Amino acid sequence: MTKARRKATRNIAIVAPACALKPDAAARVAALAEANFSDAGAALHFHPQCFLSEGHFAGSDEARSAAFLEVANDPAFDAVWFARGGYGSARLDDAIYARLNAAARRKVYMGYSDLGFVLGRLYADGIGTPVHGPMPADINRAGGETAIARALRYLVQGDQADVEPAARGGAKVAAFNLTILVHLIASGRAPNFSAHIVMIEEVSEHHYRIDRALAAVMSSPNMRDAAGLMLGRCSDIPENDPPFLKTEEEIARRWCARAGVPYLGRADIGHDVENKIVPFGAPALVA
Amino acid sequence: MTKARRKATRNIAIVAPACALKPDAAARVAALAEANFSDAGAALHFHPQCFLSEGHFAGSDEARSAAFLEVANDPAFDAVWFARGGYGSARLDDAIYARLNAAARRKVYMGYSDLGFVLGRLYADGIGTPVHGPMPADINRAGGETAIARALRYLVQGDQADVEPAARGGAKVAAFNLTILVHLIASGRAPNFSAHIVMIEEVSEHHYRIDRALAAVMSSPNMRDAAGLMLGRCSDIPENDPPFLKTEEEIARRWCARAGVPYLGRADIGHDVENKIVPFGAPALVA
Repeated sequence: MTKARRKATRNIAIVAPACALKPDAAARVAALAEANFSDAGAALHFHPQCFLSEGHFAGSDEARSAAFLEVANDPAFDAVWFARGGYGSARLDDAIYARLNAAARRKVYMGYSDLGFVLGRLYADGIGTPVHGPMPADINRAGGETAIARALRYLVQGDQADVEPAARGGAKVAAFNLTILVHLIASGRAPNFSAHIVMIEEVSEHHYRIDRALAAVMSSPNMRDAAGLMLGRCSDIPENDPPFLKTEEEIARRWCARAGVPYLGRADIGHDVENKIVPFGAPALVA
Repeated sequence: MTKARRKATRNIAIVAPACALKPDAAARVAALAEANFSDAGAALHFHPQCFLSEGHFAGSDEARSAAFLEVANDPAFDAVWFARGGYGSARLDDAIYARLNAAARRKVYMGYSDLGFVLGRLYADGIGTPVHGPMPADINRAGGETAIARALRYLVQGDQADVEPAARGGAKVAAFNLTILVHLIASGRAPNFSAHIVMIEEVSEHHYRIDRALAAVMSSPNMRDAAGLMLGRCSDIPENDPPFLKTEEEIARRWCARAGVPYLGRADIGHDVENKIVPFGAPALVA
């Protein structure tokens, strides 16, 4: 009797460096993974830290730092999937980054929004493959299953179909929430974006704040030799008073022109269920 | 017949690198100066650019840049007083800073909030005496005459009584709105705060944003060798959901401890009529 060959297990650890994940959201993501990706080998491991609560955060800074370090360094896991954004990633213990081991350096790390602090820092340190992409908490959005399935196709099957098109062209890329990028650069821990296409997206910030943030980013030495900027979706923009008179794309074009960095058009990323996958760096060449 | 000796005229030019000043606010500030400071030699010159309007801004970037450069470089003026904050200072033409002349280098420049972009950059470039202090638009606050009179006592009479106490102790100081400081540092144009006491204040930002901004500032290489941080008032803080559980002072103490920079207590600055005067750098020694 022959046995159907089953794909190797892809163990994905889920931790929450920022805000807590609701248990029912985790259950829905687990059910979706079981129903559609178990044949492909998906095995999701929700670290209990995801469900801790301490004020704004998914547990204390110590608990969040320890959980991240634990799963990153554990050779049993192939990927670390960040549970939810909000705020908190910048508060992880600085010392953990120097303690990431060889197993941590082989992993994929996926998230977006506040997690840009971790993704950017890992990338600056050359650790693993940071990936901008959907998070488990996206299950709470209307149509969120689409985003979760997209993330799992990439994490479990290595499917490149939902990788943002500009991230498939051979150029080095990185993607960030704009406000997080400003803070990451100010902290002195941002990568140097020389020769990179940098994609940004924003949510719930006024036009004047988008302009102010782009002023800072595009004036930064980190962006001086960037290959270009791409503008993701800017959603839920509060009304400016007085009217700002410029769209977010006009704002981006203006700051790119002023900085002498090419504006390369719209990126298919944002705080929504259409948010596409952006693996940082240059795509691996297929042998 | 002897003539009463009249003080030398102190010519103060008022321009608006950010948002426009209302003509009636200018009229009230002019009347206050005439009534109480004309004997002391005060002569206020409101540049017509203050009253221009282009969407969010007091005229185009070109108009605001040109007006600032004009009054800064004019030897007839002793001081440049910024009219109002909001947003726009970061959009001034970069090239004007290199065109500031010898007259510009002898002047006092006063403002706060968004004007931190200009004050910080002038200070980084060693041009004149940037001063954090009230602006003409403060006349619109309840009790705003107090703030205007304080500014004029300093600008016209050189009165040191309303200089923030920590700025009178001999240490080098600088003062900023926290959000503006994050953006200034990210832009690569912030001063190095080595051996400086840095005062910060904030308005209308959630506790999580104050924490996030302090994370960036206190992690920045610009702050590595600072003599200390002082926390001004953080006003109109929107309610955090979930509750942040820490006060702004606890937040400041935490990030100072983590950065190894002394927390030196509260500073008497803020977005209010009590906002005190902070001349950047070390106080001039009295001969």
